[in-house]
Amino acid sequence: MSKQSIERFEENSKNKLSDQAHHVFDEAISLEKVGQNRFKGRAHPAYENMVGPFGGVTAAVLLQSVLQHPDCIGDPIALTVNYASPVALADFEIESHAVKTNRSTQHWMISLIQEGEVVASATAVIAKRRDTWSTHEAQPPKDVPAPESIQRMSPEGRFTWFGRYDIRVIDADSAVLDEVERDHSETSVWMRDYPPRPIDFLSLTGLCDVFFPRIFIRRRKRVPIGTVSMTIYFHADRDSLLKQSDQYVLGTARANRFRNGFFDQSAEVWSRDGELLATTHQIVYYKE
Amino acid sequence: MSKQSIERFEENSKNKLSDQAHHVFDEAISLEKVGQNRFKGRAHPAYENMVGPFGGVTAAVLLQSVLQHPDCIGDPIALTVNYASPVALADFEIESHAVKTNRSTQHWMISLIQEGEVVASATAVIAKRRDTWSTHEAQPPKDVPAPESIQRMSPEGRFTWFGRYDIRVIDADSAVLDEVERDHSETSVWMRDYPPRPIDFLSLTGLCDVFFPRIFIRRRKRVPIGTVSMTIYFHADRDSLLKQSDQYVLGTARANRFRNGFFDQSAEVWSRDGELLATTHQIVYYKE
Repeated sequence: MSKQSIERFEENSKNKLSDQAHHVFDEAISLEKVGQNRFKGRAHPAYENMVGPFGGVTAAVLLQSVLQHPDCIGDPIALTVNYASPVALADFEIESHAVKTNRSTQHWMISLIQEGEVVASATAVIAKRRDTWSTHEAQPPKDVPAPESIQRMSPEGRFTWFGRYDIRVIDADSAVLDEVERDHSETSVWMRDYPPRPIDFLSLTGLCDVFFPRIFIRRRKRVPIGTVSMTIYFHADRDSLLKQSDQYVLGTARANRFRNGFFDQSAEVWSRDGELLATTHQIVYYKE
Repeated sequence: MSKQSIERFEENSKNKLSDQAHHVFDEAISLEKVGQNRFKGRAHPAYENMVGPFGGVTAAVLLQSVLQHPDCIGDPIALTVNYASPVALADFEIESHAVKTNRSTQHWMISLIQEGEVVASATAVIAKRRDTWSTHEAQPPKDVPAPESIQRMSPEGRFTWFGRYDIRVIDADSAVLDEVERDHSETSVWMRDYPPRPIDFLSLTGLCDVFFPRIFIRRRKRVPIGTVSMTIYFHADRDSLLKQSDQYVLGTARANRFRNGFFDQSAEVWSRDGELLATTHQIVYYKE
Protein backbone atom coordinates (compact mmCIF):
# COMPACT_ATOMS: atom_id res chain seq x y z
CA MET A 1 0.00 0.00 0.00
CA SER A 2 1.42 3.40 -0.94
CA LYS A 3 1.97 6.22 1.54
CA GLN A 4 -0.95 8.04 -0.05
CA SER A 5 -3.30 5.15 0.36
CA ILE A 6 -2.25 4.65 3.98
CA GLU A 7 -2.99 8.32 4.59
CA ARG A 8 -6.32 7.98 2.88
CA PHE A 9 -6.98 4.89 4.91
CA GLU A 10 -6.11 6.72 8.11
CA GLU A 11 -8.26 9.68 7.16
CA ASN A 12 -11.19 7.37 6.50
CA SER A 13 -10.53 5.47 9.69
CA LYS A 14 -10.70 8.55 11.88
CA ASN A 15 -14.22 9.19 10.74
CA LYS A 16 -15.55 5.77 11.46
CA LEU A 17 -13.64 4.59 14.48
CA SER A 18 -15.92 5.87 17.17
CA ASP A 19 -17.81 2.62 17.56
CA GLN A 20 -16.16 -0.75 18.01
CA ALA A 21 -17.82 -2.35 15.03
CA HIS A 22 -15.73 -0.22 12.72
CA HIS A 23 -12.47 -0.13 14.60
CA VAL A 24 -9.53 -0.83 12.33
CA PHE A 25 -8.47 -3.62 14.71
CA ASP A 26 -11.75 -5.41 14.03
CA GLU A 27 -11.20 -4.98 10.33
CA ALA A 28 -7.71 -6.45 10.69
CA ILE A 29 -8.94 -9.55 12.49
CA SER A 30 -12.12 -10.14 10.51
CA LEU A 31 -12.43 -13.61 9.04
CA GLU A 32 -14.81 -15.15 6.57
CA LYS A 33 -15.80 -18.78 7.15
CA VAL A 34 -15.02 -20.76 4.02
CA GLY A 35 -15.22 -24.33 5.34
CA GLN A 36 -15.94 -26.33 8.47
CA ASN A 37 -12.55 -25.49 10.00
CA ARG A 38 -11.37 -22.93 7.49
CA PHE A 39 -11.42 -19.15 7.41
CA LYS A 40 -10.23 -16.55 4.97
CA GLY A 41 -8.66 -13.25 5.99
CA ARG A 42 -6.21 -10.65 4.81
CA ALA A 43 -3.15 -9.11 6.46
CA HIS A 44 -4.11 -5.49 7.07
CA PRO A 45 -1.77 -2.71 5.89
CA ALA A 46 -2.74 -0.55 8.87
CA TYR A 47 -0.76 -2.94 11.09
CA GLU A 48 2.30 -3.19 8.89
CA ASN A 49 5.56 -3.86 10.71
CA MET A 50 9.13 -4.23 9.49
CA VAL A 51 8.31 -7.33 7.46
CA GLY A 52 4.60 -8.20 7.23
CA PRO A 53 2.03 -7.30 9.89
CA PHE A 54 2.66 -6.70 13.59
CA GLY A 55 2.86 -10.04 15.41
CA GLY A 56 0.20 -9.08 17.93
CA VAL A 57 -2.46 -8.75 15.27
CA THR A 58 -1.44 -12.08 13.75
CA ALA A 59 -1.83 -13.68 17.18
CA ALA A 60 -5.24 -12.02 17.55
CA VAL A 61 -6.52 -13.26 14.20
CA LEU A 62 -5.36 -16.80 15.04
CA LEU A 63 -7.32 -16.61 18.29
CA GLN A 64 -10.24 -15.07 16.42
CA SER A 65 -10.52 -18.22 14.29
CA VAL A 66 -11.16 -20.15 17.51
CA LEU A 67 -13.46 -17.67 19.24
CA GLN A 68 -15.76 -17.37 16.23
CA HIS A 69 -15.67 -21.10 15.48
CA PRO A 70 -19.05 -22.70 16.16
CA ASP A 71 -17.36 -25.48 18.18
CA CYS A 72 -15.78 -23.08 20.69
CA ILE A 73 -17.05 -23.78 24.23
CA GLY A 74 -15.78 -20.81 26.23
CA ASP A 75 -13.12 -18.17 26.73
CA PRO A 76 -9.38 -18.40 26.14
CA ILE A 77 -7.04 -19.52 28.91
CA ALA A 78 -3.82 -20.04 26.93
CA LEU A 79 -2.54 -19.18 23.48
CA THR A 80 0.82 -20.03 21.95
CA VAL A 81 1.72 -18.61 18.56
CA ASN A 82 4.74 -19.73 16.56
CA TYR A 83 5.89 -17.31 13.90
CA ALA A 84 7.33 -19.60 11.25
CA SER A 85 7.96 -17.01 8.54
CA PRO A 86 6.86 -13.46 7.73
CA VAL A 87 3.17 -13.10 6.90
CA ALA A 88 2.84 -11.41 3.50
CA LEU A 89 0.53 -8.40 3.26
CA ALA A 90 -1.93 -10.48 1.30
CA ASP A 91 -4.81 -12.93 1.69
CA PHE A 92 -4.42 -15.90 4.00
CA GLU A 93 -6.38 -18.89 5.15
CA ILE A 94 -6.63 -20.11 8.70
CA GLU A 95 -7.34 -23.71 9.54
CA SER A 96 -8.41 -24.25 13.13
CA HIS A 97 -9.86 -27.30 14.75
CA ALA A 98 -10.69 -28.48 18.24
CA VAL A 99 -8.50 -31.52 18.81
CA LYS A 100 -10.17 -32.32 22.12
CA THR A 101 -13.18 -31.07 24.01
CA ASN A 102 -13.42 -31.90 27.70
CA ARG A 103 -16.06 -30.86 30.18
CA SER A 104 -14.36 -27.59 31.05
CA THR A 105 -11.41 -27.26 28.67
CA GLN A 106 -10.95 -27.48 24.92
CA HIS A 107 -7.71 -27.78 22.96
CA TRP A 108 -7.19 -26.21 19.54
CA MET A 109 -4.60 -26.40 16.79
CA ILE A 110 -4.44 -23.54 14.32
CA SER A 111 -2.44 -22.83 11.15
CA LEU A 112 -2.20 -19.64 9.12
CA ILE A 113 -1.51 -20.53 5.51
CA GLN A 114 -0.29 -18.46 2.56
CA GLU A 115 0.55 -19.89 -0.85
CA GLY A 116 0.09 -23.40 0.54
CA GLU A 117 2.68 -22.89 3.31
CA VAL A 118 2.15 -22.63 7.08
CA VAL A 119 3.52 -19.21 8.00
CA ALA A 120 2.27 -19.25 11.59
CA SER A 121 0.93 -22.00 13.82
CA ALA A 122 -0.75 -21.83 17.16
CA THR A 123 -2.35 -23.81 19.93
CA ALA A 124 -5.09 -22.46 22.15
CA VAL A 125 -6.88 -23.67 25.24
CA ILE A 126 -10.44 -22.57 25.78
CA ALA A 127 -12.19 -23.05 29.10
CA LYS A 128 -15.40 -22.68 30.96
CA ARG A 129 -14.44 -21.13 34.25
CA ARG A 130 -16.27 -21.65 37.49
CA ASP A 131 -16.09 -19.88 40.84
CA THR A 132 -13.24 -21.12 43.02
CA TRP A 133 -10.88 -19.83 45.65
CA SER A 134 -8.94 -17.10 43.86
CA THR A 135 -6.13 -14.69 44.67
CA HIS A 136 -3.46 -12.50 43.15
CA GLU A 137 0.16 -13.25 43.83
CA ALA A 138 2.05 -10.87 41.53
CA GLN A 139 1.79 -7.18 42.39
CA PRO A 140 1.54 -4.33 39.88
CA PRO A 141 4.50 -1.93 39.66
CA LYS A 142 4.39 0.79 42.31
CA ASP A 143 4.42 4.58 41.98
CA VAL A 144 3.44 4.62 38.35
CA PRO A 145 2.38 8.05 37.06
CA ALA A 146 -1.07 8.27 35.47
CA PRO A 147 -1.14 7.80 31.69
CA GLU A 148 -2.62 11.27 31.30
CA SER A 149 0.55 12.73 32.80
CA ILE A 150 2.78 11.10 30.16
CA GLN A 151 2.93 11.96 26.47
CA ARG A 152 1.91 9.41 23.90
CA MET A 153 4.93 8.08 22.07
CA SER A 154 4.84 9.65 18.64
CA PRO A 155 4.20 7.18 15.81
CA GLU A 156 6.04 9.55 13.43
CA GLY A 157 8.81 7.84 11.55
CA ARG A 158 7.91 4.45 13.01
CA PHE A 159 6.32 1.36 11.51
CA THR A 160 2.66 1.77 10.61
CA TRP A 161 1.28 -0.43 13.43
CA PHE A 162 2.61 2.04 15.97
CA GLY A 163 -0.11 4.43 14.92
CA ARG A 164 -2.71 1.84 15.95
CA TYR A 165 -1.63 2.06 19.60
CA ASP A 166 -1.43 4.73 22.23
CA ILE A 167 1.80 3.84 24.02
CA ARG A 168 3.03 5.85 26.98
CA VAL A 169 6.45 4.83 28.22
CA ILE A 170 6.84 5.34 31.95
CA ASP A 171 10.64 5.41 32.04
CA ALA A 172 11.33 7.66 29.05
CA ASP A 173 15.02 6.89 29.41
CA SER A 174 14.29 3.28 28.38
CA ALA A 175 13.40 4.44 24.88
CA VAL A 176 16.73 6.22 24.32
CA LEU A 177 18.92 4.46 21.74
CA ASP A 178 22.34 5.91 22.54
CA GLU A 179 24.09 2.52 22.42
CA VAL A 180 25.13 2.78 26.07
CA GLU A 181 24.20 -0.58 27.54
CA ARG A 182 21.78 -0.71 30.47
CA ASP A 183 22.07 -3.28 33.25
CA HIS A 184 18.49 -4.51 32.88
CA SER A 185 15.61 -4.37 30.43
CA GLU A 186 12.60 -4.05 32.71
CA THR A 187 10.19 -1.33 31.64
CA SER A 188 6.56 -0.42 32.15
CA VAL A 189 4.19 1.18 29.65
CA TRP A 190 0.62 2.33 29.59
CA MET A 191 -1.06 1.19 26.41
CA ARG A 192 -4.35 0.86 24.60
CA ASP A 193 -5.65 0.71 21.06
CA TYR A 194 -5.68 3.98 19.14
CA PRO A 195 -8.35 5.22 18.73
CA PRO A 196 -9.52 3.70 22.04
CA ARG A 197 -11.46 0.45 21.70
CA PRO A 198 -13.06 -1.52 24.54
CA ILE A 199 -10.65 -4.31 25.45
CA ASP A 200 -11.55 -7.94 24.79
CA PHE A 201 -9.55 -11.15 24.54
CA LEU A 202 -8.55 -10.29 20.98
CA SER A 203 -7.22 -6.80 21.60
CA LEU A 204 -5.58 -8.01 24.83
CA THR A 205 -3.76 -10.54 22.66
CA GLY A 206 -2.51 -7.73 20.43
CA LEU A 207 -1.44 -5.66 23.43
CA CYS A 208 0.66 -8.56 24.72
CA ASP A 209 3.02 -8.06 21.78
CA VAL A 210 3.31 -4.26 21.96
CA PHE A 211 6.39 -4.31 24.23
CA PHE A 212 9.62 -3.15 22.59
CA PRO A 213 12.15 -5.89 22.01
CA ARG A 214 14.04 -6.19 25.27
CA ILE A 215 17.35 -6.21 23.42
CA PHE A 216 16.77 -2.66 22.15
CA ILE A 217 16.26 -1.52 25.72
CA ARG A 218 19.14 -3.45 27.19
CA ARG A 219 21.66 -2.49 24.52
CA ARG A 220 20.03 0.83 23.69
CA LYS A 221 20.36 0.07 20.02
CA ARG A 222 18.36 -1.59 17.30
CA VAL A 223 19.44 -4.98 16.00
CA PRO A 224 17.47 -7.25 13.65
CA ILE A 225 14.96 -9.23 15.72
CA GLY A 226 11.86 -11.38 15.25
CA THR A 227 9.54 -13.06 17.73
CA VAL A 228 9.76 -16.81 17.28
CA SER A 229 7.12 -17.96 19.75
CA MET A 230 4.75 -16.14 22.10
CA THR A 231 2.53 -17.54 24.84
CA ILE A 232 -0.30 -15.72 26.59
CA TYR A 233 -2.12 -16.86 29.72
CA PHE A 234 -5.43 -15.07 30.13
CA HIS A 235 -6.25 -14.43 33.77
CA ALA A 236 -9.09 -12.03 33.13
CA ASP A 237 -12.49 -13.39 32.28
CA ARG A 238 -15.07 -11.78 30.06
CA ASP A 239 -16.64 -9.79 32.90
CA SER A 240 -13.39 -8.29 34.10
CA LEU A 241 -12.55 -7.23 30.55
CA LEU A 242 -16.00 -5.71 30.00
CA LYS A 243 -15.47 -3.69 33.15
CA GLN A 244 -12.26 -2.22 31.71
CA SER A 245 -13.95 -0.79 28.64
CA ASP A 246 -11.33 1.25 26.73
CA GLN A 247 -9.12 2.26 29.65
CA TYR A 248 -5.33 2.05 29.47
CA VAL A 249 -3.68 -1.14 30.63
CA LEU A 250 -0.27 -1.24 32.26
CA GLY A 251 2.38 -3.59 30.92
CA THR A 252 5.65 -4.53 32.59
CA ALA A 253 8.23 -6.62 30.74
CA ARG A 254 11.72 -7.95 31.31
CA ALA A 255 14.15 -10.45 29.81
CA ASN A 256 15.74 -13.33 31.66
CA ARG A 257 18.61 -14.22 29.35
CA PHE A 258 20.07 -13.17 26.00
CA ARG A 259 22.09 -16.01 24.55
CA ASN A 260 23.58 -16.67 21.12
CA GLY A 261 20.76 -15.44 18.97
CA PHE A 262 17.72 -15.77 21.25
CA PHE A 263 16.36 -13.94 24.26
CA ASP A 264 13.19 -14.40 26.26
CA GLN A 265 10.71 -11.85 27.57
CA SER A 266 8.20 -12.21 30.40
CA ALA A 267 5.52 -9.63 30.93
CA GLU A 268 2.40 -8.85 32.92
CA VAL A 269 -0.56 -6.82 31.71
CA TRP A 270 -2.52 -5.05 34.48
CA SER A 271 -5.77 -3.18 34.43
CA ARG A 272 -5.69 0.36 35.70
CA ASP A 273 -7.30 -0.79 38.93
CA GLY A 274 -4.63 -3.42 39.59
CA GLU A 275 -6.13 -6.62 38.17
CA LEU A 276 -3.68 -8.96 36.41
CA LEU A 277 -5.34 -9.46 33.04
CA ALA A 278 -2.67 -11.58 31.36
CA THR A 279 0.86 -12.88 31.68
CA THR A 280 2.79 -13.32 28.47
CA HIS A 281 6.12 -14.78 27.47
CA GLN A 282 8.03 -14.85 24.24
CA ILE A 283 11.30 -15.99 22.77
CA VAL A 284 12.86 -13.71 20.21
CA TYR A 285 15.52 -14.24 17.59
CA TYR A 286 18.20 -11.57 17.33
CA LYS A 287 21.20 -11.04 15.14
CA GLU A 288 24.62 -9.71 16.24
CA MET B 1 1.14 -52.58 36.48
CA SER B 2 0.75 -54.22 39.87
CA LYS B 3 2.68 -53.15 42.94
CA GLN B 4 4.73 -56.33 42.66
CA SER B 5 5.69 -55.67 39.12
CA ILE B 6 6.66 -52.08 39.93
CA GLU B 7 8.89 -53.40 42.68
CA ARG B 8 10.37 -55.95 40.31
CA PHE B 9 10.84 -53.20 37.80
CA GLU B 10 12.56 -51.01 40.36
CA GLU B 11 14.75 -53.86 41.51
CA ASN B 12 15.80 -54.53 37.92
CA SER B 13 16.29 -50.83 37.30
CA LYS B 14 18.71 -50.39 40.18
CA ASN B 15 21.03 -52.88 38.66
CA LYS B 16 21.23 -51.32 35.26
CA LEU B 17 20.95 -47.62 35.87
CA SER B 18 24.60 -46.78 36.23
CA ASP B 19 25.10 -45.78 32.61
CA GLN B 20 22.91 -43.40 30.69
CA ALA B 21 22.03 -45.84 27.95
CA HIS B 22 20.00 -47.83 30.43
CA HIS B 23 18.57 -45.07 32.53
CA VAL B 24 14.88 -45.55 33.12
CA PHE B 25 14.28 -42.03 31.76
CA ASP B 26 15.74 -43.12 28.43
CA GLU B 27 13.51 -46.17 28.47
CA ALA B 28 10.51 -43.94 29.14
CA ILE B 29 11.22 -41.63 26.22
CA SER B 30 12.36 -44.24 23.71
CA LEU B 31 10.51 -44.17 20.41
CA GLU B 32 10.42 -46.49 17.46
CA LYS B 33 10.12 -44.91 14.03
CA VAL B 34 7.11 -46.43 12.25
CA GLY B 35 6.63 -43.92 9.43
CA GLN B 36 8.07 -40.79 7.90
CA ASN B 37 6.63 -38.58 10.65
CA ARG B 38 5.37 -41.28 12.97
CA PHE B 39 6.78 -42.90 16.06
CA LYS B 40 5.57 -45.52 18.45
CA GLY B 41 6.15 -45.43 22.20
CA ARG B 42 4.67 -46.54 25.46
CA ALA B 43 3.79 -44.65 28.63
CA HIS B 44 6.21 -45.97 31.24
CA PRO B 45 4.86 -47.19 34.59
CA ALA B 46 8.01 -45.98 36.36
CA TYR B 47 6.76 -42.41 35.82
CA GLU B 48 3.18 -42.99 36.86
CA ASN B 49 1.41 -39.99 38.33
CA MET B 50 -2.09 -39.49 39.71
CA VAL B 51 -3.72 -40.22 36.35
CA GLY B 52 -1.34 -41.43 33.64
CA PRO B 53 2.35 -40.59 33.47
CA PHE B 54 4.09 -37.52 34.93
CA GLY B 55 3.62 -34.57 32.53
CA GLY B 56 7.34 -33.87 32.35
CA VAL B 57 8.08 -37.22 30.78
CA THR B 58 5.22 -36.75 28.30
CA ALA B 59 6.74 -33.38 27.34
CA ALA B 60 10.14 -35.05 26.97
CA VAL B 61 8.88 -37.81 24.69
CA LEU B 62 7.11 -35.24 22.50
CA LEU B 63 10.39 -33.35 22.19
CA GLN B 64 12.20 -36.64 21.60
CA SER B 65 10.09 -37.21 18.48
CA VAL B 66 11.56 -33.99 17.06
CA LEU B 67 15.16 -34.45 18.20
CA GLN B 68 15.42 -37.93 16.73
CA HIS B 69 13.55 -37.00 13.55
CA PRO B 70 15.89 -37.07 10.55
CA ASP B 71 14.62 -33.61 9.47
CA CYS B 72 15.66 -31.89 12.72
CA ILE B 73 18.23 -29.16 12.05
CA GLY B 74 19.45 -28.20 15.53
CA ASP B 75 18.68 -27.87 19.21
CA PRO B 76 15.44 -26.85 20.90
CA ILE B 77 14.71 -23.21 21.69
CA ALA B 78 11.02 -23.44 22.62
CA LEU B 79 8.54 -26.18 23.44
CA THR B 80 4.86 -25.83 24.27
CA VAL B 81 2.92 -28.89 25.36
CA ASN B 82 -0.86 -28.95 25.70
CA TYR B 83 -2.24 -31.71 27.85
CA ALA B 84 -5.60 -32.45 26.27
CA SER B 85 -6.53 -35.52 28.31
CA PRO B 86 -4.78 -38.05 30.54
CA VAL B 87 -2.28 -40.28 28.75
CA ALA B 88 -3.20 -43.90 29.41
CA LEU B 89 -0.44 -46.22 30.65
CA ALA B 90 -0.40 -47.93 27.28
CA ASP B 91 1.08 -47.70 23.79
CA PHE B 92 0.89 -44.41 21.93
CA GLU B 93 1.85 -42.97 18.58
CA ILE B 94 3.48 -39.60 18.04
CA GLU B 95 3.09 -37.73 14.80
CA SER B 96 5.61 -34.93 14.38
CA HIS B 97 6.42 -32.89 11.34
CA ALA B 98 8.45 -29.80 10.51
CA VAL B 99 5.92 -27.28 9.24
CA LYS B 100 8.63 -24.81 8.24
CA THR B 101 12.40 -24.90 7.99
CA ASN B 102 14.24 -21.58 7.80
CA ARG B 103 17.95 -20.93 7.69
CA SER B 104 18.36 -20.90 11.45
CA THR B 105 14.97 -21.91 12.88
CA GLN B 106 12.57 -24.77 12.33
CA HIS B 107 8.94 -25.05 13.46
CA TRP B 108 7.34 -28.34 14.47
CA MET B 109 3.83 -29.55 15.23
CA ILE B 110 3.48 -32.71 17.28
CA SER B 111 0.56 -34.88 18.40
CA LEU B 112 0.48 -37.77 20.83
CA ILE B 113 -2.27 -40.17 19.86
CA GLN B 114 -3.97 -43.00 21.73
CA GLU B 115 -6.96 -44.94 20.44
CA GLY B 116 -7.19 -42.52 17.50
CA GLU B 117 -7.50 -39.45 19.74
CA VAL B 118 -5.02 -36.64 20.31
CA VAL B 119 -4.28 -36.76 24.03
CA ALA B 120 -1.44 -34.21 23.94
CA SER B 121 -0.29 -31.75 21.32
CA ALA B 122 2.84 -29.67 21.13
CA THR B 123 4.77 -27.17 19.09
CA ALA B 124 8.53 -26.91 19.14
CA VAL B 125 11.06 -24.51 17.70
CA ILE B 126 14.48 -25.86 16.80
CA ALA B 127 17.39 -23.55 16.04
CA LYS B 128 20.95 -23.38 14.95
CA ARG B 129 22.55 -20.91 17.31
CA ARG B 130 25.46 -18.69 16.45
CA ASP B 131 27.77 -16.54 18.56
CA THR B 132 26.28 -13.17 19.42
CA TRP B 133 26.38 -10.61 22.19
CA SER B 134 24.97 -12.48 25.19
CA THR B 135 24.18 -11.74 28.80
CA HIS B 136 22.17 -12.88 31.79
CA GLU B 137 19.51 -10.65 33.19
CA ALA B 138 17.75 -12.81 35.78
CA GLN B 139 19.78 -13.72 38.86
CA PRO B 140 19.74 -17.05 40.69
CA PRO B 141 18.27 -17.09 44.20
CA LYS B 142 20.79 -16.05 46.85
CA ASP B 143 22.03 -17.84 49.96
CA VAL B 144 20.85 -21.24 48.88
CA PRO B 145 22.28 -24.12 50.95
CA ALA B 146 24.13 -26.83 49.04
CA PRO B 147 22.01 -29.81 47.97
CA GLU B 148 24.25 -32.10 50.02
CA SER B 149 23.18 -30.26 53.18
CA ILE B 150 19.48 -30.95 52.54
CA GLN B 151 17.71 -34.31 52.73
CA ARG B 152 16.19 -35.80 49.64
CA MET B 153 12.41 -35.64 49.81
CA SER B 154 11.25 -39.17 50.51
CA PRO B 155 9.31 -40.75 47.64
CA GLU B 156 7.56 -42.98 50.19
CA GLY B 157 3.80 -42.84 49.91
CA ARG B 158 3.98 -40.57 46.87
CA PHE B 159 3.23 -41.14 43.21
CA THR B 160 5.68 -43.45 41.46
CA TRP B 161 7.39 -40.73 39.37
CA PHE B 162 8.65 -39.13 42.56
CA GLY B 163 11.07 -41.98 42.93
CA ARG B 164 12.62 -41.05 39.57
CA TYR B 165 13.81 -37.70 40.92
CA ASP B 166 16.06 -36.54 43.70
CA ILE B 167 14.22 -33.46 44.97
CA ARG B 168 15.62 -31.35 47.79
CA VAL B 169 13.28 -28.63 48.96
CA ILE B 170 15.15 -25.57 50.21
CA ASP B 171 12.35 -24.11 52.29
CA ALA B 172 11.08 -27.25 54.04
CA ASP B 173 8.16 -25.25 55.40
CA SER B 174 6.82 -24.90 51.85
CA ALA B 175 6.09 -28.61 51.76
CA VAL B 176 3.92 -28.55 54.90
CA LEU B 177 0.25 -29.15 54.17
CA ASP B 178 -1.37 -27.78 57.33
CA GLU B 179 -4.05 -25.85 55.40
CA VAL B 180 -2.81 -22.52 56.80
CA GLU B 181 -2.61 -20.29 53.76
CA ARG B 182 0.76 -18.70 52.84
CA ASP B 183 1.03 -15.24 51.33
CA HIS B 184 3.09 -16.40 48.34
CA SER B 185 4.02 -19.59 46.52
CA GLU B 186 7.65 -18.96 45.57
CA THR B 187 9.93 -21.86 46.39
CA SER B 188 13.31 -23.18 45.31
CA VAL B 189 14.38 -26.80 44.97
CA TRP B 190 17.50 -28.68 44.02
CA MET B 191 16.65 -31.49 41.66
CA ARG B 192 18.07 -34.11 39.35
CA ASP B 193 17.13 -37.46 37.93
CA TYR B 194 17.36 -40.41 40.30
CA PRO B 195 19.65 -42.23 39.85
CA PRO B 196 21.72 -39.32 38.51
CA ARG B 197 21.81 -39.01 34.72
CA PRO B 198 23.78 -36.45 32.72
CA ILE B 199 21.37 -33.65 31.83
CA ASP B 200 20.33 -33.06 28.22
CA PHE B 201 17.45 -31.21 26.57
CA LEU B 202 15.14 -34.14 27.23
CA SER B 203 15.78 -34.54 30.94
CA LEU B 204 15.80 -30.74 31.34
CA THR B 205 12.29 -30.83 29.84
CA GLY B 206 11.22 -33.36 32.45
CA LEU B 207 12.79 -31.32 35.26
CA CYS B 208 10.77 -28.27 34.17
CA ASP B 209 7.62 -30.04 35.35
CA VAL B 210 8.92 -31.31 38.69
CA PHE B 211 7.77 -28.23 40.66
CA PHE B 212 4.89 -28.85 43.07
CA PRO B 213 1.63 -27.28 42.02
CA ARG B 214 1.78 -23.70 43.33
CA ILE B 215 -1.70 -24.00 44.74
CA PHE B 216 -0.60 -26.73 47.18
CA ILE B 217 2.11 -24.40 48.45
CA ARG B 218 -0.04 -21.31 48.60
CA ARG B 219 -2.99 -22.99 50.29
CA ARG B 220 -0.96 -25.63 52.06
CA LYS B 221 -3.43 -28.24 50.99
CA ARG B 222 -3.98 -30.60 48.10
CA VAL B 223 -6.77 -29.89 45.63
CA PRO B 224 -7.37 -31.67 42.33
CA ILE B 225 -5.11 -30.07 39.68
CA GLY B 226 -3.82 -30.76 36.18
CA THR B 227 -1.36 -28.89 33.97
CA VAL B 228 -3.21 -27.66 30.89
CA SER B 229 -0.33 -26.13 28.94
CA MET B 230 3.41 -25.82 29.59
CA THR B 231 6.02 -23.79 27.71
CA ILE B 232 9.79 -24.15 28.02
CA TYR B 233 12.40 -21.77 26.64
CA PHE B 234 15.81 -23.41 26.44
CA HIS B 235 18.60 -20.94 27.14
CA ALA B 236 21.33 -23.54 27.51
CA ASP B 237 22.95 -24.96 24.45
CA ARG B 238 24.34 -28.44 24.06
CA ASP B 239 27.78 -27.48 25.36
CA SER B 240 26.52 -25.86 28.51
CA LEU B 241 24.39 -28.93 29.25
CA LEU B 242 27.29 -31.30 28.59
CA LYS B 243 29.35 -29.32 31.09
CA GLN B 244 26.67 -29.91 33.75
CA SER B 245 26.87 -33.69 33.55
CA ASP B 246 24.65 -35.12 36.31
CA GLN B 247 24.90 -32.26 38.81
CA TYR B 248 21.87 -30.91 40.60
CA VAL B 249 20.01 -28.01 39.03
CA LEU B 250 18.24 -25.33 41.03
CA GLY B 251 14.64 -24.48 40.25
CA THR B 252 12.67 -21.48 41.49
CA ALA B 253 8.95 -21.20 40.80
CA ARG B 254 6.10 -18.85 41.64
CA ALA B 255 2.51 -18.17 40.60
CA ASN B 256 1.18 -14.85 39.36
CA ARG B 257 -2.53 -15.34 39.73
CA PHE B 258 -5.03 -18.00 40.83
CA ARG B 259 -8.42 -17.28 39.32
CA ASN B 260 -11.62 -19.29 38.98
CA GLY B 261 -10.15 -22.64 38.10
CA PHE B 262 -6.74 -21.77 36.63
CA PHE B 263 -3.42 -20.51 37.94
CA ASP B 264 -0.14 -19.87 36.20
CA GLN B 265 3.40 -20.76 37.23
CA SER B 266 6.67 -19.21 36.08
CA ALA B 267 9.98 -20.83 36.89
CA GLU B 268 13.69 -20.67 36.23
CA VAL B 269 16.06 -23.62 36.14
CA TRP B 270 19.68 -22.78 37.03
CA SER B 271 22.83 -24.80 36.84
CA ARG B 272 24.79 -25.16 40.06
CA ASP B 273 27.28 -22.60 38.78
CA GLY B 274 24.62 -19.99 38.12
CA GLU B 275 23.79 -20.42 34.45
CA LEU B 276 20.12 -20.02 33.51
CA LEU B 277 19.41 -23.25 31.64
CA ALA B 278 15.69 -22.78 31.01
CA THR B 279 12.69 -20.64 31.85
CA THR B 280 9.35 -22.40 31.97
CA HIS B 281 5.73 -21.38 32.36
CA GLN B 282 2.55 -23.32 32.78
CA ILE B 283 -1.14 -22.84 33.31
CA VAL B 284 -2.82 -25.30 35.58
CA TYR B 285 -6.42 -26.27 36.12
CA TYR B 286 -7.60 -26.57 39.71
CA LYS B 287 -10.84 -27.48 41.39
CA GLU B 288 -12.36 -25.80 44.47
